[in-house]
Amino acid sequence: MSDFLELKQQCFEANLQLPKLGLVVYTFGNVSVADHTKGVFAIKPSGVSYDSMKAEDMVIVDFENNLVEGRMRPSSDTKTHGYLYRQWPGIGGISHTHATYSVAWAQAQKDIPILGTTHADHLTHDIPCAPPMPDNYIREDYELMTGHQIVDCFNQRKLDYSEVQMILIGNHGPFTWGADAEKAVYNSKILEELARMALLTLQINPQAPRLKEALIEKHHQRKHGKNAYYGQDEGPE
Amino acid sequence: MSDFLELKQQCFEANLQLPKLGLVVYTFGNVSVADHTKGVFAIKPSGVSYDSMKAEDMVIVDFENNLVEGRMRPSSDTKTHGYLYRQWPGIGGISHTHATYSVAWAQAQKDIPILGTTHADHLTHDIPCAPPMPDNYIREDYELMTGHQIVDCFNQRKLDYSEVQMILIGNHGPFTWGADAEKAVYNSKILEELARMALLTLQINPQAPRLKEALIEKHHQRKHGKNAYYGQDEGPE
Amino acid sequence: MSDFLELKQQCFEANLQLPKLGLVVYTFGNVSVADHTKGVFAIKPSGVSYDSMKAEDMVIVDFENNLVEGRMRPSSDTKTHGYLYRQWPGIGGISHTHATYSVAWAQAQKDIPILGTTHADHLTHDIPCAPPMPDNYIREDYELMTGHQIVDCFNQRKLDYSEVQMILIGNHGPFTWGADAEKAVYNSKILEELARMALLTLQINPQAPRLKEALIEKHHQRKHGKNAYYGQDEGPE
Amino acid sequence: MSDFLELKQQCFEANLQLPKLGLVVYTFGNVSVADHTKGVFAIKPSGVSYDSMKAEDMVIVDFENNLVEGRMRPSSDTKTHGYLYRQWPGIGGISHTHATYSVAWAQAQKDIPILGTTHADHLTHDIPCAPPMPDNYIREDYELMTGHQIVDCFNQRKLDYSEVQMILIGNHGPFTWGADAEKAVYNSKILEELARMALLTLQINPQAPRLKEALIEKHHQRKHGKNAYYGQDEGPE
Repeated sequence: MSDFLELKQQCFEANLQLPKLGLVVYTFGNVSVADHTKGVFAIKPSGVSYDSMKAEDMVIVDFENNLVEGRMRPSSDTKTHGYLYRQWPGIGGISHTHATYSVAWAQAQKDIPILGTTHADHLTHDIPCAPPMPDNYIREDYELMTGHQIVDCFNQRKLDYSEVQMILIGNHGPFTWGADAEKAVYNSKILEELARMALLTLQINPQAPRLKEALIEKHHQRKHGKNAYYGQDEGPE
Repeated sequence: MSDFLELKQQCFEANLQLPKLGLVVYTFGNVSVADHTKGVFAIKPSGVSYDSMKAEDMVIVDFENNLVEGRMRPSSDTKTHGYLYRQWPGIGGISHTHATYSVAWAQAQKDIPILGTTHADHLTHDIPCAPPMPDNYIREDYELMTGHQIVDCFNQRKLDYSEVQMILIGNHGPFTWGADAEKAVYNSKILEELARMALLTLQINPQAPRLKEALIEKHHQRKHGKNAYYGQDEGPE
Repeated sequence: MSDFLELKQQCFEANLQLPKLGLVVYTFGNVSVADHTKGVFAIKPSGVSYDSMKAEDMVIVDFENNLVEGRMRPSSDTKTHGYLYRQWPGIGGISHTHATYSVAWAQAQKDIPILGTTHADHLTHDIPCAPPMPDNYIREDYELMTGHQIVDCFNQRKLDYSEVQMILIGNHGPFTWGADAEKAVYNSKILEELARMALLTLQINPQAPRLKEALIEKHHQRKHGKNAYYGQDEGPE
Repeated sequence: MSDFLELKQQCFEANLQLPKLGLVVYTFGNVSVADHTKGVFAIKPSGVSYDSMKAEDMVIVDFENNLVEGRMRPSSDTKTHGYLYRQWPGIGGISHTHATYSVAWAQAQKDIPILGTTHADHLTHDIPCAPPMPDNYIREDYELMTGHQIVDCFNQRKLDYSEVQMILIGNHGPFTWGADAEKAVYNSKILEELARMALLTLQINPQAPRLKEALIEKHHQRKHGKNAYYGQDEGPE
């Protein structure tokens, strides 16, 4: 019997959230969840639809992308996930979607500016859009290099992956992460909402200003400061 | 046994309307309902999801924000609600959401102009957008000052809170209210519809004119005049 | 027992389609259905929500707006319906909504141009937007004058109400009609779709041309010509 | 008993996907599925609503559009389908919708540019928009000439129908196809998603660049190259 029943079950349930939240159609998207103690993660099998998928179809691979357990081929984005778990040991789940508004910003190759408190309740930076992958990366090991592209972007901008739990890949789409798979999926949904709100805001007022510094600071403190007083759980109210 | 069973039940049911009406995701938003005789109000607990919430989780606080009954921490916006109940004794319910189009106008820092009769059936003024909070307010007691921000805006513009039952907080989002919690939530949904209609109208015709004065006057009289003849209930037809 | 059981039932079912088709929220909108032999029509009661409404709540009035049967006040738009049935004896049902995209065009005070075959499958004219009501009309008998506003617009533009079964009232919203209530509601939904498609089309290409004359003519003939060969029923395919 | 029970069933199920996927309302749209061995295809009957339709209502016609079996008139677009099956023997299913964003691009008479990897995962060309039909075609045999319009466009642009499985007809709407009816419908949904993403992308950044050549090439190879490694099935992840 499998040593990874619980990991597969978590992975399965988190993946099922994607169509339920309106973030994917058909086989789009994938979520993984890591067990850093065992050095493995569970991930959605490649090209399987959410309707027909079962918990036992989840594939177990190690952080070097070796197959540990599973009858199906893992998601074609598996190397991206593995690289992020190796580089950022503090994260326990990763989610990737082709959600409409997130993809639109990624295709527009624009950071999503922080325009309000809904954004500030989740992160106090603009949501970064990594520039499209350089040609030599593309020709190399594409999915692995997507991992590099993400980490490079965070390093260049001096962003902390535990503070900013989302990124847009220019031309491609969003990746989000968190302490576990549920939080990673939550961040995919939040990113989609922020992407939609930002687009609409700029349609109403192309000169809409960024959130003022005092408010950014306040929201940061409210959640992360030493006197944080926000929620039994997460999210704006 | 609790003295506030009915108040909690009303509060619970009104809160559940928010996700049902598509106005919130996850833990976003909160509704409260006041009992002015007892000097208390019931409000959603902080950061709890709508799926798992029960009527007995609603928190009872007085208008000075002292906890009266409840096992959970009340919404982080509780001081805003308390301040409004103190200042505006005629209101019995307050609703706060992060609904997409309402937030977009708030982030754009624009009043929503009165462009048609759907708007005039509910209020005969532009929907005010309060300017972002001054820095000294932010550093003081943020949620309490949000209450001040709302009342200041109404005072400066000489608006009557029983006529105009909604406001946008610049950079943040909408607050609405009414005689009870159900009406407050109704106003949140109407505001979202008006916000969406106004955005689309201005996309079709950036020079779309405000509703003409004779129609504003007519709609005002139809509902509030001495010969009002509209509805068994409220809303446009 | 009522002589109008069937008429009320038809009216009730047609009204329930409005929220099901996403064309109204709360108490917005109203549908009526006429019996020209008896000289009466059934219409939604004023301000009653779709959830709680029953078939026996439908109100029967004659074409001069005298109450014939019913315990509730009829829709505040009743005089508009009555005037249209008097002027246009060929119609058997009328539908009025505040559907979002239809209202947006009405508020923008623009005709919806014929941009494609989806439009041409239903009507081969631009969808007319009647100019806002003159002030003297407004001060007179508002809802009755809305009927005049519609008929005036059709007369001035020499439109045939059996060909063009829909109009936008500037600043207000859409009215549609047809041989029966079901067709009137169908036209409300089609108008909303055409309004949405036209807005998106002009966002992609502000210079998008009107449908070419040969195609307009072809689509007109396909449905209305002497060799019409389209459908067991109506609608594009 | 019918020789075409299975073909009708496939056709019926594929047609029912259209309203379920939000691609049609009322009687809009039609899907067909071919049996090239028998030289026939099953298609939706004309003007019948999806709610009331049964599998036995599907109509069997040959590739010259002669009725083979069925009590109802076949879709008014039947000649378009027949012509495509004759010209392109490799396709087994065809889908036609009036989906909103697809129609908007068709009415705008613009190709949908390849702006990201979601697009590249399905096709590595812009989605062609055939110019509106010349007047002499329209006056001839309209639906047959729609087939010519599609094949002409592919020939002029030297596109391969097995690579590019979708087209927009200027002023009209989308046609998609594939190895079977299920794949044809899948492509209708994907086209609608790509149409929506492209519109939003260009609203955020009117100068959004086409996908870079190295990425187009990479995505092409990933699915179609000799070392293709993508999916148990299809679609981006």
